[in-house]
Amino acid sequence: MTLDVVTLLNEIAEIGRDPVRGGYSRHVYEPAELELREWFRRTSDALGLEVETDRNGNIWAHWGTRGHGTIAIGSHLDSVPGGGAYDGPLGVTSSLAAVSALMDEGFVPARPVTIAAFGEEEGSRFGIACLGSKLMAGTLPGDKVAALVDETGVTYAEACRADGIDPAGLGRDQERLANLAAFVELHVEQGVGLADLDAPVAVASSILAHGRWKLVFSGEGNHAGATRMRDRRDPVAAMAAAVLAAQRIASSHDGAESARATIGRLTPIPGGTNVIASRVDAWLDVRGDTEPQTRALLEEILAASNAAAEEHGCTLEVTEESYVSTVHFDPDLQQRLTDALGGVPVLATGAGHDAGVLAAEIPTAMLFTRNPTGVSHSPFETATDEDCRAGARALTEVIRLLASEPRG
Amino acid sequence: MTLDVVTLLNEIAEIGRDPVRGGYSRHVYEPAELELREWFRRTSDALGLEVETDRNGNIWAHWGTRGHGTIAIGSHLDSVPGGGAYDGPLGVTSSLAAVSALMDEGFVPARPVTIAAFGEEEGSRFGIACLGSKLMAGTLPGDKVAALVDETGVTYAEACRADGIDPAGLGRDQERLANLAAFVELHVEQGVGLADLDAPVAVASSILAHGRWKLVFSGEGNHAGATRMRDRRDPVAAMAAAVLAAQRIASSHDGAESARATIGRLTPIPGGTNVIASRVDAWLDVRGDTEPQTRALLEEILAASNAAAEEHGCTLEVTEESYVSTVHFDPDLQQRLTDALGGVPVLATGAGHDAGVLAAEIPTAMLFTRNPTGVSHSPFETATDEDCRAGARALTEVIRLLASEPRG
Repeated sequence: MTLDVVTLLNEIAEIGRDPVRGGYSRHVYEPAELELREWFRRTSDALGLEVETDRNGNIWAHWGTRGHGTIAIGSHLDSVPGGGAYDGPLGVTSSLAAVSALMDEGFVPARPVTIAAFGEEEGSRFGIACLGSKLMAGTLPGDKVAALVDETGVTYAEACRADGIDPAGLGRDQERLANLAAFVELHVEQGVGLADLDAPVAVASSILAHGRWKLVFSGEGNHAGATRMRDRRDPVAAMAAAVLAAQRIASSHDGAESARATIGRLTPIPGGTNVIASRVDAWLDVRGDTEPQTRALLEEILAASNAAAEEHGCTLEVTEESYVSTVHFDPDLQQRLTDALGGVPVLATGAGHDAGVLAAEIPTAMLFTRNPTGVSHSPFETATDEDCRAGARALTEVIRLLASEPRG
Repeated sequence: MTLDVVTLLNEIAEIGRDPVRGGYSRHVYEPAELELREWFRRTSDALGLEVETDRNGNIWAHWGTRGHGTIAIGSHLDSVPGGGAYDGPLGVTSSLAAVSALMDEGFVPARPVTIAAFGEEEGSRFGIACLGSKLMAGTLPGDKVAALVDETGVTYAEACRADGIDPAGLGRDQERLANLAAFVELHVEQGVGLADLDAPVAVASSILAHGRWKLVFSGEGNHAGATRMRDRRDPVAAMAAAVLAAQRIASSHDGAESARATIGRLTPIPGGTNVIASRVDAWLDVRGDTEPQTRALLEEILAASNAAAEEHGCTLEVTEESYVSTVHFDPDLQQRLTDALGGVPVLATGAGHDAGVLAAEIPTAMLFTRNPTGVSHSPFETATDEDCRAGARALTEVIRLLASEPRG
C-alpha cells in the first residue's frame, strides 16, 4: 500500500512533545530524536530500502544499489525548542511517501535514489545549524564539532555515541558526496509566499546570507535591593539596549525587506529575581540578501551593542558561531523542476537548510509546501493535509524526472 | 571549646558550590540545603542544644527550656543562585559561636535563647522570599505556599516532605510567636555603609519597601530568518524596552537614593537562536523608602512596560508575587543594642530579611557585619575573618543583654 504523508506525520505526532513550550522539542541524540531515528529506520526498512547511518550521524535509506549518480532527497527530524510538526519531518515523510508511490506504480529508477535524514539541522542542542550536512561537506572540521558542548556540559562526541557514532570518524565524506548527482529538499514554507500566491507548492531560488553570533555582556553581579542605581554595572540593561538597537538597525537598513536581526535566546547569570546579573549570554541571528549587506548590518549592530555595553559599565565579547553566505540554488535544476511541476512559483527564503550547505558541493534544489500563516519555529506552524499531499506528489514527479535519466 | 564563626563557615564551605555560576546554589529542600540543615542540627546537638524543626520547615536550636519570653537569634542557610558564602550562613554560624561563647564562660541565661534557621529566605526556588518566616507569621496562607511550583514543576508541598514536613501543617504558628520576646538577626551588610564608616558592625534602622512582580510579555513566535522585521511581534524587544524604562525611571525618581528597579531574571520562550520568541517571562524587583514612593515607582514602570508591549505588538500580564512595606525596626530595641555595643553605627538597608517579616509580630533588630566591597548575591561577596569574629562577639553581647533580663 502506498504510504501517505499525513499518516506518516500522525505516526510520529506524539514523539517529543514539549509540555512546557508546546509543540515539539526533538534535539539531536536526545531520546525523542533517537525515537524518530528508529521510526525512520523501521519505516524505510519496511519499504524495502537499505538503511545506513553514515559516520557523521546522518541516516540514509537507499532505493537501488548505491553508487555514482545518486539522486538524494530528504530533510531532518530534529526541531527547535517548542517547534512545529512540519519543519524537518515534512521533508522526510514526503520523501518516504514519494518513493513508496513510485514503487507501487512499478517505476524503475535508472539511477539510485536515497532519502537522507540529517542530524542537528536546527542547532538547538549544540548551537550550530546544519551540523550533519556541514560535517559531511567538511564545512566544519570533525574535531571542532566533537568538542562542542550542550547546555548541560555534554560534548557532541559524547552525545553522538547514543546513535552509535564514533566521533573519530566525523568529517568530510568525499566518497558519499562524489556519488550524489543532485539533492532536493522538500520543506514547509516559513513565510506566506505561497499563501499570498494561493498555490500549494513552490521551487526555491535562494537562501539569505545568515549567521549566528554569541554576545556575552559582563558587568557586576550584586544585590538588587542594596545597590544604588548609580552604582550598577548591569549587563541586562546593556543587553536590552543591544536588542533594541538590533531591531531598529535591521528595520531601517538598506534592503530592509530582507535584512533581519533577532535575539531570541538569552540567559542572565545567575538569574535571580533579587540579583543584578553579573553576565548575560545572548545569541544574535543576522540575515541579509548578500554577504556585504549582512556583514554591514552585523557591524552596525555590534557597534551599537559595544556602545550599549560601555554606557552601562559593562564589557562585550562577540564570537561568530556560524556564517553562511547567500545560497543561489542550481539555476538549471531549478528551471527543470519548475517546468516539470507545471510552472509553480519560485520563492526565496530567509531560512537556512541542509540544502543550502550541500548547494556548495552538488546541484541542489528545494520544494516548499504552503504554510497558511507563515508561522514556523513555533507550535502554531501549520500545513493542511491536502497541501502536504500536494507536496509529496510534487516530490514524486521530481524523483521521476531526475531518476529517469541514465547515469552519465 | 568555644566555637569559632570562621571555623564553622569553613565546615560548610564545600556544600552547594555552583560549578557554572560560581559561588553557591543552596536552594530550599534541594540536596545542598538539606545537607546544611543536617550540619546545623548536628552542630547544635553537639553544643547541647535541643533541635526542633517546626511545622513550617524552620529549624530551631533551643538553649534552656522552651517557653514564654524567649530570645531568638539566627538567619537562613539557603542562597540565591550563585550566591556568596555569607548571606544567611553568617547569621547562623555567628549565633552558634555566640551561644557557645556564653556557655563556655558559664553564663546562665535568665530566659530561653533559641537559634533559628529559616527556610527559603531568598525565594530562589519558589519565587517568594522569606517563605519560612512568612508561613510562621501567617503573612502567607499555608495552602497557597503548598501549591507554589518550582521551575521543574515540583510543588512546595512535594518539596518540603524532603525534610519531613507535612504540608497540611503549614501556616501561622501562634504559640511559637507568643513565646518570642525578641528576634535579632545578624547578617553580612549588602552595601558599603560600614566600609565607608570604617566600622566592623552596625545596628539596622529599617528595610526599604520592596516587592516582586512577574511580567509576561506575549507576542508571536516565528522563524528568525523568514519573518520580515515589520511583520514581527517580538516580546524580547518589548521586554528590552521595559528593562531600559525601569532603569531610567528608578534612576531619576523622587528619592533616587533609595529607589531601585531590577530585572535580573528572564526567560524567553521557546529560547532558540533562530526563533523569534513567543513569550518572555521577566521578574521585576522594585524598592523604595516608603510604600507610596515604591508604588508610584512601580506604576510608572508598568505604564512604560505596557507602552513598550503595545509598541511591539505584544501584550503584558503582570502578577504581584510579593510585597512588603517599609520596615522600621523596634526603636527601643535598636537603641539598647546600639548602647550595649558602644555606639556602633545605625544603617538602613534595601535588602529584605526574615527579621523584616517578624518585625510585624515581635520586637526585632538586626546587626550587620562589614562587607568590604558591598557586593552580595554574588560569588564575590566577602567579609574578613576578623569582621566575622567581631560580628559574633557583638551578637554575644546582645544575647547577654537580652537574656539577662528575667522573664516578665
